[in-house]
Amino acid sequence: MASPAEKHSIEVCFTPKLFPEVVTCGNYIVVLVDILRATTSICTAFANGVKNIIPVATLEEARNLKSEGYLVASEQDGKKLDFADFGNSAFNFTREAIGGKTLVYCTTNGTRALDTARRAEKIAIGAFVNLQSLSNWLNAQEKNVVILCSGWKNKFCLEDAIFAGALAQNLLLGGRFETHCDSAHAAIDLWSVAKPDVTGYIEKAAHRHRLKKLGLDDVIPYSFTLNSTEVVPVFEGSEILNVIPVVKI
Amino acid sequence: MASPAEKHSIEVCFTPKLFPEVVTCGNYIVVLVDILRATTSICTAFANGVKNIIPVATLEEARNLKSEGYLVASEQDGKKLDFADFGNSAFNFTREAIGGKTLVYCTTNGTRALDTARRAEKIAIGAFVNLQSLSNWLNAQEKNVVILCSGWKNKFCLEDAIFAGALAQNLLLGGRFETHCDSAHAAIDLWSVAKPDVTGYIEKAAHRHRLKKLGLDDVIPYSFTLNSTEVVPVFEGSEILNVIPVVKI
Repeated sequence: MASPAEKHSIEVCFTPKLFPEVVTCGNYIVVLVDILRATTSICTAFANGVKNIIPVATLEEARNLKSEGYLVASEQDGKKLDFADFGNSAFNFTREAIGGKTLVYCTTNGTRALDTARRAEKIAIGAFVNLQSLSNWLNAQEKNVVILCSGWKNKFCLEDAIFAGALAQNLLLGGRFETHCDSAHAAIDLWSVAKPDVTGYIEKAAHRHRLKKLGLDDVIPYSFTLNSTEVVPVFEGSEILNVIPVVKI
Repeated sequence: MASPAEKHSIEVCFTPKLFPEVVTCGNYIVVLVDILRATTSICTAFANGVKNIIPVATLEEARNLKSEGYLVASEQDGKKLDFADFGNSAFNFTREAIGGKTLVYCTTNGTRALDTARRAEKIAIGAFVNLQSLSNWLNAQEKNVVILCSGWKNKFCLEDAIFAGALAQNLLLGGRFETHCDSAHAAIDLWSVAKPDVTGYIEKAAHRHRLKKLGLDDVIPYSFTLNSTEVVPVFEGSEILNVIPVVKI
């Protein structure tokens, strides 16, 4: 009897601070997750034709690139910074505003997590809006997967955790992955609780309340909509590119 | 109309490494959790009449106190160390072995987490075996509560997380607590999934498999048995004492 093909592992990291402890496998792709709002926004920008995105981890870098003429999206604690062209809302990134252009992107949590993950072989950008296309792409890579939740200031956050569960479950169902990671099991169980009414579930999330206070919670229904785009943004070298070209009909 | 009494907060910390980020309240009691196996074993020792427990964070301290004539429980990565009288199994701590005596206790995760929490006003020891008596005691303290899961080498672990959920839910039901902590909400949801069949649920936990490999998983059904004792062990000064005297019938 032929032995079954070796499966790849899935590990979930609930905050960047736990990354060194969580990652026990080698040869892995990191999926970066910041549902509210960086990774949802990045997927949206590619869905609307941005050419490439340059992520930066500090405000100084973002400010310098602005002065060199780049379009810059930058926020701190959820708010757009004065010098920037955009904040961190997916709704900013319309085809008119960013189609065919290069965007510099700096956010409180998202790009910091990206910095944490730089030792990965590849870093893909995950959100509910590209869940299925991302799953398909990961299934074809023959690598282990580490799902890295950005969290909020290194705290666990619900919206990233349930996405990690949705993605982990999708990958397990494909039959090419397995997991022995307690965080992955927990994320899958949280997703099973949240799935029947995701926007209702997320009402209790702390970050949802932070955004509401700032009047920035209009993106919430969109951020939890499954598969509105087929893009798979991947960090390569010093920029993020879409590896699944958008077919224009 | 009289305004309702101010409620106390519940926060859950999934690993000691996240303690600085999670704790946003002051005036708090930490509940230390290491279901497999330190906090279950400590509760069992008090249920069986241990006089007091001296927790130590390093093997050197444990070895020194052994040479001074103390009874010592000490394990590393789940295994009893040669110089110690006991490992970390609740079944070691029979009335014959430890009744009326002082026990020195050193474990991989549990006492390290205790060390992390020393800035708390009080540190109580939580396990499924004392869930209800601990809840009753916390309800009477008029303090905020931080539930600190020991985890496994700073990784999230399922067994501690579901206990955190069981305790948080118990406290919320009492009406004197509230929570705005995503980790607490997640823990409660995980407990809701696990509760109908806890030992079945915990089959997937990584640490359960570690203990099985070492032949140390005989304590598992006992460790998930609710309310087998009414002790509430609390760390005071440099020792752990039971603040709810066991009534002998």
